[in-house]
Amino acid sequence: MSSSEKQQIVLASRPEGRPAPSNFRLERAAVPVPAEGQVLLKILYLSLDPYMRGRMSAAKSYSAPVEIGQVMEGGTVAEVLESRHPGFKAGDVVLSHSGWQSHALAHGDQLRKLDPAAAPLTTALGVLGMPGFTAYAGLLTIGQPKPGETVVVAAASGPVGSAVGQIARIKGARAVGIAGGPEKCAFVRETFGFDVVVDHRAPDLAAQLAAACPDGIDVYFENVGGKVWEAVFPLLNPFARIPVCGLVAQYNSSGDFEGPDRLPIVMRQVLSKSLTIRGFIQREFVAEQRPAFEREMAAWIASGAVKFKEDIVDGLDQAPEAFIGLLEGRNFGKLIVKI
Amino acid sequence: MSSSEKQQIVLASRPEGRPAPSNFRLERAAVPVPAEGQVLLKILYLSLDPYMRGRMSAAKSYSAPVEIGQVMEGGTVAEVLESRHPGFKAGDVVLSHSGWQSHALAHGDQLRKLDPAAAPLTTALGVLGMPGFTAYAGLLTIGQPKPGETVVVAAASGPVGSAVGQIARIKGARAVGIAGGPEKCAFVRETFGFDVVVDHRAPDLAAQLAAACPDGIDVYFENVGGKVWEAVFPLLNPFARIPVCGLVAQYNSSGDFEGPDRLPIVMRQVLSKSLTIRGFIQREFVAEQRPAFEREMAAWIASGAVKFKEDIVDGLDQAPEAFIGLLEGRNFGKLIVKI
Repeated sequence: MSSSEKQQIVLASRPEGRPAPSNFRLERAAVPVPAEGQVLLKILYLSLDPYMRGRMSAAKSYSAPVEIGQVMEGGTVAEVLESRHPGFKAGDVVLSHSGWQSHALAHGDQLRKLDPAAAPLTTALGVLGMPGFTAYAGLLTIGQPKPGETVVVAAASGPVGSAVGQIARIKGARAVGIAGGPEKCAFVRETFGFDVVVDHRAPDLAAQLAAACPDGIDVYFENVGGKVWEAVFPLLNPFARIPVCGLVAQYNSSGDFEGPDRLPIVMRQVLSKSLTIRGFIQREFVAEQRPAFEREMAAWIASGAVKFKEDIVDGLDQAPEAFIGLLEGRNFGKLIVKI
Repeated sequence: MSSSEKQQIVLASRPEGRPAPSNFRLERAAVPVPAEGQVLLKILYLSLDPYMRGRMSAAKSYSAPVEIGQVMEGGTVAEVLESRHPGFKAGDVVLSHSGWQSHALAHGDQLRKLDPAAAPLTTALGVLGMPGFTAYAGLLTIGQPKPGETVVVAAASGPVGSAVGQIARIKGARAVGIAGGPEKCAFVRETFGFDVVVDHRAPDLAAQLAAACPDGIDVYFENVGGKVWEAVFPLLNPFARIPVCGLVAQYNSSGDFEGPDRLPIVMRQVLSKSLTIRGFIQREFVAEQRPAFEREMAAWIASGAVKFKEDIVDGLDQAPEAFIGLLEGRNFGKLIVKI
């Protein structure tokens, strides 16, 4: 790659079900030149997150899809190479939403400066970034765990789930995690300090979860869907709260789902147990809660009350394979690509 | 019936699906004698409400089921015949929960005195009672309609639905009602003043509802379930709120529901539209909101801002047939039995 060329990964085609490497295409393009008010960024780290599967589909969602031939979307940490915005100078490190590429332009107004001395830069994409804030806002605003209550979260070794459980414990609740495989389960229990961890690969998942929740479930932080929901649902207590921030298990599905129809049963329980099911996207809460989150989470990390784990992959060309693995739970911790 | 005998209707057997007259049995029994702290009541009016279908089933719900051979449960307006409680004297009229019978004992602490001069006594079972309060608390606390938003409610000619729409309009929202048949639809539009009414018997219900809600639906007050949900669901706006207080359409169902499984689609919409689905029983809100409700609703009735309709059936022996009709929408207004 010459110094005036950049790399980018575009959406080559829309996946049917599970994405394949052929849905992505690595391209080269000229490094662009910033206009007045813009900066030229060199991307250092790219965040890979489950929501990106939604952007690959044409189906209507909370955000517009990525168009065929467009650069894949994503949060990034980047260094300013050249600035035509008064707020930034070359060498500044910023949080941007530049997507799967090595260089990008951005308006200075869309960037937030990072302090490399305050915390590792990658945490701006994980525990101190969007995933951590998703856990914080969804759990505290919708889940509202009270001392002694039981909070259940799946993908507990991931960036959202691990933060949910740790914040729940800070608030005095019991944290029950669900993770895939003995290595992740041990980590969730020992490093993240969950009270109990259940392996979702266990054939008796429902029985194990019931044993782990002798007083039922007061908050189920839903980020996966699928069979975990089936195990959780019968254990929900009256007035349980279910923040819904993701449904990874069904992102790759399309079309009709086989019966029986579970909706009438769920609605009956919603009524008879006065349940709250509330979908959310973290940006709804940014204006009101992001400053408090950054202050509190930084303090929790500093005190050791919140731990985090990152899974860093080297090279933009590795992004498609890493992303496909993410949807199957092959990552272990917050998945980040070092560009 | 001699003066020392009372009539009562007991649960004779549990219905499978739709209740039949044979599930009920009319009995005679001795009029009981009050102990210290109790009063003897002569029931004047019995309220019939859809929730009673749930009490006929052994399935776990938010309240214990009525046992076989027990008097059917229900809200009542009654006259005190004899009092051994300092707060009541013979001739007082009270709100009680005495069930399907002509006489009953009650502890004075469980009764609320009614002022027959303030409002017709039957309204304590309807617009000024549990159904009116269900509408008020569910709509205002969970639904939170804002001026200009669209509120949809089914069973709009019934006591809950009619209050939901009228309170929505008081709060500046558009009220769209769904009712069964031209007579009820005309009444909902003309007397209750809904902006639009759609007949759920129309073969093109979904298309008519879409036309009635050009800006989508912000609040769907769910009290019926079934096919109305199907018509409502695609029209929900981002951040729509769905208070769930009843599912009449599925109360008579049991066992598995045929596929396809609608739950994954619903959960996907919950996520992508940040929907809130919240089941509730009015008693959750009684301590905090009932006084304000009684004050506000009485004022709305006095000013004509809220109208109500009652459907009064004569004689306790008519209660089973009237109740069966209620589950099929054969009543027209708040169903009450004059004892």
